[in-house]
Amino acid sequence: MTAPQTVPLDRTVIGLPIEDLDTPTLLLDGPASQRNLARMAEFFRGRKARLRPHFKNHKCPELARRQQEAGSLVGFTCAKLGEAEVLAEHGFADILIANQVVGRRKLARLAALAGKIRVMVAVDDWEQARTISEAAFAAGVTVGVLIEVDIGMGRCGVASGELAVQLAEKLVGLPGLQFRGIQAYEGHAVYTNDPARRAESVEQSMAKAVDARRQIEKRGIPVDLISGGSSSTYKTTGRMEGVDEIQAGTYATMDWRYAQMSPEFEIALSVLARVISKRPSVAVLDVGIKGAGAEFGTPRIKDFPEAEVPSFMSEEHCVVKNAPDAWRVGDAVHLLPSHACSTCNLHRALYVHDGGRVVDVWPIEGSGRLT
Amino acid sequence: MTAPQTVPLDRTVIGLPIEDLDTPTLLLDGPASQRNLARMAEFFRGRKARLRPHFKNHKCPELARRQQEAGSLVGFTCAKLGEAEVLAEHGFADILIANQVVGRRKLARLAALAGKIRVMVAVDDWEQARTISEAAFAAGVTVGVLIEVDIGMGRCGVASGELAVQLAEKLVGLPGLQFRGIQAYEGHAVYTNDPARRAESVEQSMAKAVDARRQIEKRGIPVDLISGGSSSTYKTTGRMEGVDEIQAGTYATMDWRYAQMSPEFEIALSVLARVISKRPSVAVLDVGIKGAGAEFGTPRIKDFPEAEVPSFMSEEHCVVKNAPDAWRVGDAVHLLPSHACSTCNLHRALYVHDGGRVVDVWPIEGSGRLT
Repeated sequence: MTAPQTVPLDRTVIGLPIEDLDTPTLLLDGPASQRNLARMAEFFRGRKARLRPHFKNHKCPELARRQQEAGSLVGFTCAKLGEAEVLAEHGFADILIANQVVGRRKLARLAALAGKIRVMVAVDDWEQARTISEAAFAAGVTVGVLIEVDIGMGRCGVASGELAVQLAEKLVGLPGLQFRGIQAYEGHAVYTNDPARRAESVEQSMAKAVDARRQIEKRGIPVDLISGGSSSTYKTTGRMEGVDEIQAGTYATMDWRYAQMSPEFEIALSVLARVISKRPSVAVLDVGIKGAGAEFGTPRIKDFPEAEVPSFMSEEHCVVKNAPDAWRVGDAVHLLPSHACSTCNLHRALYVHDGGRVVDVWPIEGSGRLT
Repeated sequence: MTAPQTVPLDRTVIGLPIEDLDTPTLLLDGPASQRNLARMAEFFRGRKARLRPHFKNHKCPELARRQQEAGSLVGFTCAKLGEAEVLAEHGFADILIANQVVGRRKLARLAALAGKIRVMVAVDDWEQARTISEAAFAAGVTVGVLIEVDIGMGRCGVASGELAVQLAEKLVGLPGLQFRGIQAYEGHAVYTNDPARRAESVEQSMAKAVDARRQIEKRGIPVDLISGGSSSTYKTTGRMEGVDEIQAGTYATMDWRYAQMSPEFEIALSVLARVISKRPSVAVLDVGIKGAGAEFGTPRIKDFPEAEVPSFMSEEHCVVKNAPDAWRVGDAVHLLPSHACSTCNLHRALYVHDGGRVVDVWPIEGSGRLT
């Protein structure tokens, strides 16, 4: 069902100044991203908790490979089965799909994937788990499952530790499944600006997952792991007793919104755009919501903090107020997106730069993998 | 620079019930879309103004071909040079890029395109026009140009008829360029809910473009055409003396937002999604902003007006409140997007259905063509 993409890339631009690229184009500051990976790996060095970076952030297998090389990894997290298939094609062998996999075609794909690599998925419902069991058993494979516990976000997940226990007790008897532990995402807390309040909120939320773990273990059912966390909460979740895997994703690229929470990481991602129209104090750039996204706020302009992008962006235009007088039609500027994850999904390649020049072009093979 | 895509499509699903498709998947109700095309073509039959549909809506050459067959067309409008290149590859020969084309690489691509098909672009600046002239002259081709006039949107365009005259006088002497007329988009008026107020606002705005035309003609410079309009304003712009081409796009697919303005067109576009988690009155679907977009409001659920999507959508999740009790995990539902143009750009194919079954699969070759 998934339509595979072949994306032949123009590698003749390697060595050129980035301003010579056509626009809009997605750029990654190679050294800055590499420092982010090293910093995150360093935090987890020697800790009990390990990193399971979220691929949904950049969807780029080459960048995933750099994350793996940076160390402290136990595997990768994906939002979608299609993303996991992309990673598996590239040789990654331990993947958590941190969501419910539902639907006849998807179950067949999941079973096929489990025949090739080690895979875990989230479940929060008996019938849903049963369909995975059926598909896995029919294919002669084993799928690892984590019970998702809603720790405050109000999205998927069972509502309480008691319900988690009830589901775990039923799961352990199902063929083709291996109960592994708990999936818990504190998404309601990751954008709390104040670090102390964020840490407190994260601790309280994650404590519900740890409590569910203890309740399940009390019934004699082993729990291998709790998986959760993010790039703005890893300092809390990564230190918590009972939390084993941290699904941080954005640290690899960063965006201006996450940079407010985790200033220790550098904003390595930008969208190169060009001024296509100019009048006093106003410039119009050649990128809009189709190339930059805006759901967590409009982009900011790198190196021009006074330049302002008002709330509305068009599909292919970005109107900048308080634009510097010196800007001319044709000038290239860097936009910093508010949400790296959705912006990367809008593009087909990352143009990696160092010292103002293109040093590599990495296809974003996971772009558009929605199923 | 553009990374061309090869999208092999799974055509084995043709003939199957749409609920059997993997999710999320973009669907087009074939007969409903066809009726929309016929209705719009009928409006323009016998009129002086012609249709130049905006390709940015669906980015699907096969659907463009249906628009052409429906009649009353003079060519197509594109937002991006990359979209125009896609249409040209599919044999479409008369294209307006209703935006400023800027940048050395783009100018070379524009000149190459003008060597193959008839192409017009918007200009609003002397230097910008001069660079097009240079590139066209060097390539031995002619590029048609429209002067964009800002008729109230505050985006690109010269600010007044007098400035349009000054630019036109300079343009007519430039080699490689052919001055053709005026580009004017009343984007600030297209979402005015009240039809009478919308018509009034559109008339007042477009009158500025017509006035600029008259001023230019008074200087003895022929003006072939004014191009503008949309799917919510075509009844006004299509009847205005002096307006020659209407760039309506959304009528081919429609979305719930435009349907409030133009109820004569049917909402043919939907995103098929699946319930992946369910609790009393709440359902979670397997699509979010990466597959449905939300910039003009969250999606609505087809046939379930009481079901409500709150303001926030996650990347891959959609939380539905007041979800029917009868919904079960695995059930398929149709989401109606708020903005067809950005939703189509998120997908790689349109699954066309008729009577509940898939009848065709059309690649969206223009998806992700940002440059």
